[in-house]
Amino acid sequence: MVDEPLTIKLDHRRLKQFMVDLMVGAGASLPNAECAADIHVEADLRGVGGQGLDYLPYTLASLERSLIDGHAEPEIVHRSPAAAVIDGRRGPGQVAAVAAVGLAAELAAAAGSATVAVRNSTDIFMIGYYAELLARSGNVGIVMTSGPPLVHPHGGTERLLSTNPIAFGFPTSGPDPYVFDMATSAVASWRVRQAAYEGVELPAGSGRGPDGAPTTDPVLIRQGAISPLCGHKGFGLALSLGLLCGPLTDSGIGPELAGWQASGETHTQGHLFIAINLQAFGSTARISSRATWYLDLLRSSARAPDMDGIRIPGERAFQRRRQQLGSSVEVLAASWTNLRPFADKYGIEVPAEFHGI
Amino acid sequence: MVDEPLTIKLDHRRLKQFMVDLMVGAGASLPNAECAADIHVEADLRGVGGQGLDYLPYTLASLERSLIDGHAEPEIVHRSPAAAVIDGRRGPGQVAAVAAVGLAAELAAAAGSATVAVRNSTDIFMIGYYAELLARSGNVGIVMTSGPPLVHPHGGTERLLSTNPIAFGFPTSGPDPYVFDMATSAVASWRVRQAAYEGVELPAGSGRGPDGAPTTDPVLIRQGAISPLCGHKGFGLALSLGLLCGPLTDSGIGPELAGWQASGETHTQGHLFIAINLQAFGSTARISSRATWYLDLLRSSARAPDMDGIRIPGERAFQRRRQQLGSSVEVLAASWTNLRPFADKYGIEVPAEFHGI
Repeated sequence: MVDEPLTIKLDHRRLKQFMVDLMVGAGASLPNAECAADIHVEADLRGVGGQGLDYLPYTLASLERSLIDGHAEPEIVHRSPAAAVIDGRRGPGQVAAVAAVGLAAELAAAAGSATVAVRNSTDIFMIGYYAELLARSGNVGIVMTSGPPLVHPHGGTERLLSTNPIAFGFPTSGPDPYVFDMATSAVASWRVRQAAYEGVELPAGSGRGPDGAPTTDPVLIRQGAISPLCGHKGFGLALSLGLLCGPLTDSGIGPELAGWQASGETHTQGHLFIAINLQAFGSTARISSRATWYLDLLRSSARAPDMDGIRIPGERAFQRRRQQLGSSVEVLAASWTNLRPFADKYGIEVPAEFHGI
Repeated sequence: MVDEPLTIKLDHRRLKQFMVDLMVGAGASLPNAECAADIHVEADLRGVGGQGLDYLPYTLASLERSLIDGHAEPEIVHRSPAAAVIDGRRGPGQVAAVAAVGLAAELAAAAGSATVAVRNSTDIFMIGYYAELLARSGNVGIVMTSGPPLVHPHGGTERLLSTNPIAFGFPTSGPDPYVFDMATSAVASWRVRQAAYEGVELPAGSGRGPDGAPTTDPVLIRQGAISPLCGHKGFGLALSLGLLCGPLTDSGIGPELAGWQASGETHTQGHLFIAINLQAFGSTARISSRATWYLDLLRSSARAPDMDGIRIPGERAFQRRRQQLGSSVEVLAASWTNLRPFADKYGIEVPAEFHGI
């Protein structure tokens, strides 16, 4: 265990500007940098720091080496009434994902539902964000992605699956939609990274070391593999999502996505977006208010004496977001330390809060 | 622990005929009985007996009391290019589900993908079967359903969610598609029922008793509630699927689905079918063969020394199916004992294998 990590608080607009400046410095176009920064700021606002500012050094390094093409513009390469394929042109994944969300909502408005695949892409981060965008446009949103192999199959030891997350968004009659976002691994990869930084153990069942033996040491798990969530079930779910984001989207899968950040020579990533327009299934107002009724019922039901109470997925993140939007957003001082060399190199104005750290 | 349960082996065609006779005896039309029997026989063939012959007494009782309308014909009540709603007219759920599969495949062939909701339905059983049908017609199939409240929310104790399962089907270049079918509860409800019959304990974390305390006793869990799979994650997944099969399909959710078998006075069930046509996303042959390549890679990867090896979801069920199709299918003698009063009442010819049990 180490001391509580040092954090820095600053206005979220200033944080975004800093992220944009850094990405433009590393070779992204202004619109691409702004789109990518939106998602990273949202991650910090929701308390998912590992997908926020803390991730940026990896992105900047990838932009500098042209592993991510910072000027790429996504292109619609196939379009039918309820299906489309977007080529991300190896640009920032967030840009392709936001395009996919817009196209899925547009197609679903006309056809009732739609599925949009993104191929030739890079990481899209925090997939709940896109599910939320779909929900805010009156759709059920189902979003899936894959990534580099970090997870072993149930019964095996090799890194052959990604943490393959899935997210659902569902409109409610309240200010925020219902948003649920889960990794299909026992732990998310950024949590393993964070635990390794902080020197804390992970729960039993989190992973296996390079020798294939189960371990709770995040450093050994980073050398070995993360375990699938709940054994066979998490494996099957991860595998199903992998097939949808790999073969179906004409993208890499499993080991084909390994080593991308090292060499850029492997396949690119794929993602899948499903939009189901509420109006095609009845009254949007009635469907949303029925969802709200049920969520309220769950929230106010009897609590288990040995538990912390019932928390509806996504609500804590929205609460934290609202709180931090109104004041300032908290980031790790360690993230800034990793970014300083880039800021120096690009000659970027650094937020005053970082001075003297 | 009790002795190994007594089983009976008979030809699957004879088993189907017997099921059809029983359902027609209880008031189903011949086509409806044949469709429903297909799914129950498939469950027995795959070794999922709890959804096969063993379930039939409940169905017969529901048909007799007109809780299931055995003569209902599903009706398409809304249809747009990629969305449709089928009213199951409170008939056997399997009939509405097979209609939904056909319609989803038809719409997806023209539009690229489609989502079909079924409302006013009853149980559809073994949802992997419908995902498999979609996969065999060249689609990714995603099938979800809900049902009576048996599961408590994470942090709570009340029965407010169903075991809300989800199934994925994906075409391969082999004889069988990839099919994965999972409950979002720690254990499937029919497994709890089976364990209660057999007097065996369930694994830790399976459920809570009527007092809200965790227990491994299946009898207490049947009086209390099954736990969600892996806590918060299983809860979020179950809740997401519940919203899709309840409010979205204009059907009951949670406690609204309670007591149906007792009174028939609660809401009816909903189900959701998503079909994604491979041809809209590239070459069906290439997508399927990439899937097969990846499944082979997983299957032949390094095994964990402390585990039984790597099993691709669905494959064991297909193996068992093939084996039993070629010889005879195994059912529980106890199932037959529960069915005897119905066979006597309807004056049905009973398979010779059951004589003298």
